[in-house]
Amino acid sequence: MTEANTLISNTQSLTDTVLEALEDNNQDVLHSTFLNLEASEIVHLLESIPDSLRGALWEYIPEEFNGEVLVELGDVARVSLAKYLDHGQVVDAVSDLDTNDLADVVDTLPDEFGDAIRQSLDFHGLQNLEACLAFDEDTAGRLMETDAIAIRSDVTLEAILRYLRKKETIPEHTMGLMVIDREGLFLGELPLSKLITSSPDKHVSDVMDTEALSVPPEMPQNELAVLFREHDLTSMPVVDEGNKLIGRITLDDMIEILDEEADRQILGAVGLDEEEDLFSPVLPSAKRRLFWLGINLATAFLASWVIGLFEGTLEKVVALAVLMPIVASMGGIAGSQTLTLMIRGLAMGKISSSNQRWLAYKEITISIISGVVWAIVVGCISYLWFQDIKISLVLGSAMVINLAVAAVAGFSIPLLMKKAGIDPALAGGVALTTATDVVGFVSFLGLATIFLL
Amino acid sequence: MTEANTLISNTQSLTDTVLEALEDNNQDVLHSTFLNLEASEIVHLLESIPDSLRGALWEYIPEEFNGEVLVELGDVARVSLAKYLDHGQVVDAVSDLDTNDLADVVDTLPDEFGDAIRQSLDFHGLQNLEACLAFDEDTAGRLMETDAIAIRSDVTLEAILRYLRKKETIPEHTMGLMVIDREGLFLGELPLSKLITSSPDKHVSDVMDTEALSVPPEMPQNELAVLFREHDLTSMPVVDEGNKLIGRITLDDMIEILDEEADRQILGAVGLDEEEDLFSPVLPSAKRRLFWLGINLATAFLASWVIGLFEGTLEKVVALAVLMPIVASMGGIAGSQTLTLMIRGLAMGKISSSNQRWLAYKEITISIISGVVWAIVVGCISYLWFQDIKISLVLGSAMVINLAVAAVAGFSIPLLMKKAGIDPALAGGVALTTATDVVGFVSFLGLATIFLL
Repeated sequence: MTEANTLISNTQSLTDTVLEALEDNNQDVLHSTFLNLEASEIVHLLESIPDSLRGALWEYIPEEFNGEVLVELGDVARVSLAKYLDHGQVVDAVSDLDTNDLADVVDTLPDEFGDAIRQSLDFHGLQNLEACLAFDEDTAGRLMETDAIAIRSDVTLEAILRYLRKKETIPEHTMGLMVIDREGLFLGELPLSKLITSSPDKHVSDVMDTEALSVPPEMPQNELAVLFREHDLTSMPVVDEGNKLIGRITLDDMIEILDEEADRQILGAVGLDEEEDLFSPVLPSAKRRLFWLGINLATAFLASWVIGLFEGTLEKVVALAVLMPIVASMGGIAGSQTLTLMIRGLAMGKISSSNQRWLAYKEITISIISGVVWAIVVGCISYLWFQDIKISLVLGSAMVINLAVAAVAGFSIPLLMKKAGIDPALAGGVALTTATDVVGFVSFLGLATIFLL
Repeated sequence: MTEANTLISNTQSLTDTVLEALEDNNQDVLHSTFLNLEASEIVHLLESIPDSLRGALWEYIPEEFNGEVLVELGDVARVSLAKYLDHGQVVDAVSDLDTNDLADVVDTLPDEFGDAIRQSLDFHGLQNLEACLAFDEDTAGRLMETDAIAIRSDVTLEAILRYLRKKETIPEHTMGLMVIDREGLFLGELPLSKLITSSPDKHVSDVMDTEALSVPPEMPQNELAVLFREHDLTSMPVVDEGNKLIGRITLDDMIEILDEEADRQILGAVGLDEEEDLFSPVLPSAKRRLFWLGINLATAFLASWVIGLFEGTLEKVVALAVLMPIVASMGGIAGSQTLTLMIRGLAMGKISSSNQRWLAYKEITISIISGVVWAIVVGCISYLWFQDIKISLVLGSAMVINLAVAAVAGFSIPLLMKKAGIDPALAGGVALTTATDVVGFVSFLGLATIFLL
């Protein structure tokens, strides 16, 4: 019996143990440690140690896990690990992989590995690989497993059980058997639970689920996630336009998809790739982040240029320089709330054309309430500070304007970007803060120029 | 056969259809629409329409789904829906719920509903409810289902199958049967796949998994998520200190947990509750967001106060007012990348005491590279703009300082908060931008005061 309450701390001590053993070059400890690990634990370990040390651990990974480990590593981690491996090692590792896992590896590693792998496949394997790669990344066709057990509907459950016992094993994460007709067309699913609890002399057609949902191979993974959550599914058969069964998406594939979609929003909001590897080497990481900082620098200079238009005003009333960041930053904070809710709502499939109007109304109403409340607060504080009622009024007015604009921006930016085919999770934040900075500075300094000079 | 590729657009048209029918008070359309929906579709629909309209839809929800719908709604949505229901309706709705779902409802609705529900339970039901509520929210004990099928190890698989056929149904999301001994102590799991593919005359003890992980009821859900991902589990038995089986966490419970953990970081970063309801009424939403804006306003005034210390400098060199937001904002952007990676890394269980040193080294190195690169860039741009080499040097130096500080802050804030028991996903961002704003303004304006005046 393994007590999991000790496992969490064990996980972190596992990392410590291995790092220590690597430092001391203690091969015995490394060998014995790895013998006791499952593939997913090895992946977790590799992702928790510095990139340069991962190559050194490859030889300790039990051979039967090599492929699984390569597959389950994040893309960035996989590429950087491959720098320490030769073609032969990678070809050996992937030799037992399912087609969709193989496609993932081939697609993300440098071409030299892809070529070596292709050369190692037989005709059938190569055909399967190219068929899989023909689908776009992150679609059902690319993610599906092709190992579903398919059965006919006119047999008894007794016969099915005998068949499965002869097979001795069924594919992992099977919760139901796919039912097809003579031409391979998808008819429905037979849940394992029904197979077990129904009388064996019943026929598959008596107990199968004919309402089972199926998806086309082109469906992108974010739509799969919406369907999955909404219909409480346990598996998803994939069918072509002729309704022929070509694969299935399993529950644990879905969990990976949900994690990736979450990462996309969490990391995308700060300009990081959702495959970002915590321990990837310094220089590639630096390059990736520099691009994002560059874009933000450009928007920062835009805001500075806007401020520069009011140099004259600032020279005369220096209190404005002290107070101006307040309006801009409050707009950014409030707008980010609206933006984040919209992006998450779109990802979860909750935004439709008819509820948009109500949402827009709600967000703008909240922003006006906020704007008035905070306008009064900041007006009072600035009066206590500078004893100038005009500055307070200008500050308060700019606050209301900017918060209202922030709500409109936070609401519309994701919708407009989605229409334009841009991922709002990545670019939405930059667009929003650019808008709230510019409007914030223009409204505050502009009103000040008009009313204070 | 239901083609799912039409389902996505159907979902959004569903919302439109219902909203239209409500507007026209078209009861026939509403009745027939709801007859064709599953519980999870109803929940999705309710979460996609304005709060005030949800109460009106309650009567159209098929009675057998009432409880499930109440349970699956987010906490905020559930509370606002309950405003339109009387005690009797809620008590009827929850009458068939499992204990953990009942506990969720009782815990989140106003006390009047909780009391009404308690009064409707028999002694046994009440005991179960209080036992469940005794566990902290978001722990295994609160989340577990208590309906696991438990079997003995000394029986044949044939006997198990006969038993299950007599039961006719097994609990949803069962992927394995729990094996216990005479005293109810947990021995292992019998996966359904093994039950189906093994010879029926074998005994449970021959084919069961004795290495099955189990968790204590106190384990918090974020640790459950780490274990789950890392060990590729399909279910988690929950055992007390005496190793007695008391419940199980199912796969779809886990998916809810993963979604919540993701929401916590996504929404927490902008000061929203992870249960935030897109369509909750305006006033409660406004109140929740005002609190967050208030905190950020305080930090904005802190930054203003810091700028105010350099009023004299700003009066003399107005170009400083134009350029100063650049340093502060770049620090915030870069620091957010480090912060977000750390928070996500901590949530995924990838940060341990021995890899922290390497991570800190990596983040600070990247920040110095970034700092130098951008210092040169902004220095050149500001020289082209203001033709003042001293301003450029001051700007560049402040950039390097602030980016380095941002990296240190982004790295340490989550670790310090975690030690202090604060959730870094919520408070980390505010702490970071406060630090980068203050350091940004102080370094830029401070250096300017020293070298330009």
